[in-house]
Amino acid sequence: MGIPKDGGNGLGAVLSKIATDGRHGEDSPYFDGWKAYEENPFHPAQNPDGVIQMGLSENGLCFDLTEDWMKSNPKASICTAEGVENFSSIANFQDYHGLPEFRQAIARFMTRIRCGRAKFDSDRIVMSGGCTGACETLVFCLADPEDAFLVPSPYYPAFNRDVRWRTGVQLIPINCKSSNNFQLTLPELESAYEEAVESGVNVKGLILTNPSNPLGTTLDRTSLRELLEFTSRKKIHLVCDEIYSATVFSSPEFTSVSEVMHEVECCDPNLVHIIYSLSKDMGLPGFRVGVIYSYNNTVVSIARKMSSFGLVSSQTQLLVASMLSDEEFVEKFLEESPRRLRARHRKFVRALGEVGIGCLQGNAGLFFWMDLRHFLKEQTFEEEMRLWRVIVHDVRLNVSPGSSFGCPEPGFFRVCFANMEEGTADVALGRIRAFVSKREHDGEKKRKWGGNKMLRLSLKPLRYDENNILTTMSSPDMMSPRSPLVRARN
Amino acid sequence: MGIPKDGGNGLGAVLSKIATDGRHGEDSPYFDGWKAYEENPFHPAQNPDGVIQMGLSENGLCFDLTEDWMKSNPKASICTAEGVENFSSIANFQDYHGLPEFRQAIARFMTRIRCGRAKFDSDRIVMSGGCTGACETLVFCLADPEDAFLVPSPYYPAFNRDVRWRTGVQLIPINCKSSNNFQLTLPELESAYEEAVESGVNVKGLILTNPSNPLGTTLDRTSLRELLEFTSRKKIHLVCDEIYSATVFSSPEFTSVSEVMHEVECCDPNLVHIIYSLSKDMGLPGFRVGVIYSYNNTVVSIARKMSSFGLVSSQTQLLVASMLSDEEFVEKFLEESPRRLRARHRKFVRALGEVGIGCLQGNAGLFFWMDLRHFLKEQTFEEEMRLWRVIVHDVRLNVSPGSSFGCPEPGFFRVCFANMEEGTADVALGRIRAFVSKREHDGEKKRKWGGNKMLRLSLKPLRYDENNILTTMSSPDMMSPRSPLVRARN
Repeated sequence: MGIPKDGGNGLGAVLSKIATDGRHGEDSPYFDGWKAYEENPFHPAQNPDGVIQMGLSENGLCFDLTEDWMKSNPKASICTAEGVENFSSIANFQDYHGLPEFRQAIARFMTRIRCGRAKFDSDRIVMSGGCTGACETLVFCLADPEDAFLVPSPYYPAFNRDVRWRTGVQLIPINCKSSNNFQLTLPELESAYEEAVESGVNVKGLILTNPSNPLGTTLDRTSLRELLEFTSRKKIHLVCDEIYSATVFSSPEFTSVSEVMHEVECCDPNLVHIIYSLSKDMGLPGFRVGVIYSYNNTVVSIARKMSSFGLVSSQTQLLVASMLSDEEFVEKFLEESPRRLRARHRKFVRALGEVGIGCLQGNAGLFFWMDLRHFLKEQTFEEEMRLWRVIVHDVRLNVSPGSSFGCPEPGFFRVCFANMEEGTADVALGRIRAFVSKREHDGEKKRKWGGNKMLRLSLKPLRYDENNILTTMSSPDMMSPRSPLVRARN
Repeated sequence: MGIPKDGGNGLGAVLSKIATDGRHGEDSPYFDGWKAYEENPFHPAQNPDGVIQMGLSENGLCFDLTEDWMKSNPKASICTAEGVENFSSIANFQDYHGLPEFRQAIARFMTRIRCGRAKFDSDRIVMSGGCTGACETLVFCLADPEDAFLVPSPYYPAFNRDVRWRTGVQLIPINCKSSNNFQLTLPELESAYEEAVESGVNVKGLILTNPSNPLGTTLDRTSLRELLEFTSRKKIHLVCDEIYSATVFSSPEFTSVSEVMHEVECCDPNLVHIIYSLSKDMGLPGFRVGVIYSYNNTVVSIARKMSSFGLVSSQTQLLVASMLSDEEFVEKFLEESPRRLRARHRKFVRALGEVGIGCLQGNAGLFFWMDLRHFLKEQTFEEEMRLWRVIVHDVRLNVSPGSSFGCPEPGFFRVCFANMEEGTADVALGRIRAFVSKREHDGEKKRKWGGNKMLRLSLKPLRYDENNILTTMSSPDMMSPRSPLVRARN
C-alpha cells in the first residue's frame, strides 16, 4: 500500500491533511537559497569560490564575549567538575514553569533591553522551543482554524509555517509600499481589516515584528500607539514579535509595545502578547530559547500547558539563567553587540552605495533591505527571481528575494550581514563590486551595439541621499508622515 | 473586556476553542497528586513527614554513572575550557535534521537496546521535544481532527493531552481486564475496532506502550505480531511507544515492533512508527530528547519539518551524542541500570507482599501496578478515590490511582519506585506497613463491635502465588493464553 499522492484527504487516507497539503511553507526561494549554500558552502581556505551565506539571520559578532564568560563560569554548566553536583536535579527537571531562576533572568533581561521603561514579571514568562514554537503556541491559544491574523508585508517567511500550518489559521498580508519605506500606515491597516471582515473572515489580530524582519527598521512610538489603538478599538489581539529588540544599533531607539500600553486608554492588556527569544539578540538559535510574554492570564496558563510540547532543555535553562544573571556580562554584551552590528552594517551599506546600490535606512536587525529595482529588466517578480538566481549561482551570495517575504513590489532583497567573519564580508563585497562592474561593462557594450531600452532605464540610479540611503519617494498614495526614516533624518 | 467564561467558541471569541475547552487533560488525580507533593514535599532531614513522590516515573538510580562520565569528558560540553572552542558553531546550529553525530548516536543506542536484533537508520531519526512532542507531532502527521486512535487501557494519562488536545484527534480506549493481567487480546482489539468503525469513526491506528506504562509489563513476541498483523490487515497505523525499552530488568526480554515486522507478511512498513526518548532509559527528562522513528518516508520528512516547533537544544544534542558514542559507558549503563531497577522493584514488591498487598508481575518500567481492591469498601471508582486521598494525605505517598490511567476496574494504583533514594524507599515502606497495620487493627475493632460485612469481605486476601504476584484469575472472559505473566512462570 503506497502513500496517496492526492493529498490524502478522503476517509481512510493514510496520512493527515496537514502532512500532505504542502502548507509547511518551505517551498520558497528563502529556503532554496539555503540549499544552494549547503551544496557549495564558502570557506575562506577550503572553498573560497563557494556560496556565501547571507540568507541566515544569525548574530555571530560577539561570540568572543560569550566564550570568555563561559571559560570563567564553569559552575554554570552541569557538565563541569565545578557544576556536576547539580547534574541529577537539573537533568530531572521537567516542570513546565521552567527553572525560577531562568524565568527571572529572562524577565530581567527583557526589562534591561527596554532600559527599565517597561517591567516584566517572571510569572508571565512562558518558555517555548524558540520563537518558532512560541509563535505557534500563541496562535493555538488565540485563534481557531480559518480565523485570521493580519500581518504587514514584507514579513518573516516562516510565519507561513508557524502561524498557519498546524493551526489552520490564515495569514492576511497587508501590502506595504516602498513609497513610504514599507511602514504600515493606519489607513492601510483599517482597509485590510475591513476588507477581511466584509469577506466573512474572523480577524483575530495583528502581528507586528518590531524591529522588522526583513526591513531592519523599528516602529516609532506614535505609529505603534496608533496601531495598538486600532487593535484595542476592534477588540482584536496585538502580537508583537520583539525577537530583534536588542539588535537596535542606531537611533531611533527601540520602543516596545510594553512601553505604550498605558498610553492607550482603550487598551485591554488581555489582548497584548509579546514573542521573544535569545536566538537573535544573544546569537543562540541552537539553544531554542523562545518566550511568550502575555498580559492575558488565561493565555499564560494555557500556553504554559502547551509548552510541554517544546520545553527548553533544563541544561540550557540553567546555563542561560546563570549567564543572564551576571549583570556585568549583560551590560557589556548589550553595549558591545550593537556597536559591532552598527560597524558591520555601515561597512556594507557604504560599500554598496559606492557601486550605486541603495538600501532602506535601517537601525536594527542582522540584515538590511537592498534595493535592486534598477537591476531588473522589468519590474516583475519573474525578473526578480531571474536576478536572484544570478546572485545565488553566479555571484554566489545567498541573499533572500523580497518575494519570499511576500513583498508586494519586486526588486528588493534581504541581506544578512552579522553571521560572517570580517574577511568573508570583504569577499562578499568584492563579489558585488565585480558583479556591478561587469553589468555596467556589459550594459555599455549593449548600448554601444543597440541594447534594449529597458536595461538602460533600469540602470538609471534611483534617488538616494548623501548617505546612500533610499530617500522617501513622493507618491500620491504615501500615507505616513511619521516614517522612522523621515524622523531619523529630521 | 473580560475573558469569556463560556468556552469562547462563538465568532469573535477572544481565545481559541483549544485554549478554553479544558481538554488539556490536567484535571486528573494523576496531576492532583503531584500538587499534593509539591505543597508538602518529603525531605529526609528538613521535612521527614512530607509527601513522598511516587507518582513521578523518573529513573534516578544511575546518576553516579552519568556524573562520573561527565567529570571525565569535559570536551563533551561546550561550556568547559576543553569544549568551548565548539561553542559558536554549536550555539548557532539550528538545522532540523539535528547534528549528524546526535542522530547516529541515538540510532546506535536504539540498536544496542535491542541487542542488534533490529537495526536503526540515523536518517529516520526525527528529533522532538521529548516524547510529548514526538507523540503530538506523529499524530499531526497521521490523523485529521475527529479521526481516532485505539489505545489499550490502562494507558499513560498524558496521551489525553499529547494525542488529542491540539490535534483534535480522538482516543478510544480498549478496556483490558485484570482477569488476564490487563493484556490486550486480539478479540478485544477486533471488537473495539469494529464498534468504532460501525459508529462512523475513522480509526487511523493503534497506540501501544511497550513496555507498558502503567503496568510495567512487556508485550510478548506472539501478541505483538498478532497486533501488527491486525493493524496491517486493516491498513491502519501501529504506533509503538518504546520509551521504557531499556528499563526491562527481568525476563521475558523486550521485543520491539522493529523485530517482528519482517515476520508479518502483510506488514506495510509505511504504517509502523516508534516513539522514543532518553527521559526514562537514561533518566534525562529535563533534556527533552524525544525521537520519532518512522518507516514511512513522508512521515520522516514532514515530522522533521514539524520538529522546528520543538528542536532539542544543540547544547544537549552535542552532550548526548558524545555520551552515547562512548560504547564502554553505554555497555556499563545498560548492564547496571536494569540490575538496580530489579533490586529496587523486588524490595518493594516483597515488602508489600509481607503485608498482604499484591502487585501485577512486572519486568520493566520504573513502577509497579499495585492491587488494593481488597482495601475498597465497594468496588467503585468513588471508593478508589477515597482510598487514594487517604494514601496521599494521610499515608503521604503520592501514588497514582488506576482511574487516572483510564483503568476499567477500580482498586489499582501505579507506584513509582526509581525516583528516590534508598532511605526514602524505606520510609515509604514503613508508612505502608503502619497504614496496613492500623487498618487491620481498626478492622478488628469494627468486627468486634459489629463492623459492616463489606469491609470484612474486602479484606479477604486475593489469590497470589508464592512470590506475592497476583495470579491469573480464571474468568469466562479471559482471552489471551499468552499473557507474559503466564509465560514467565512456565
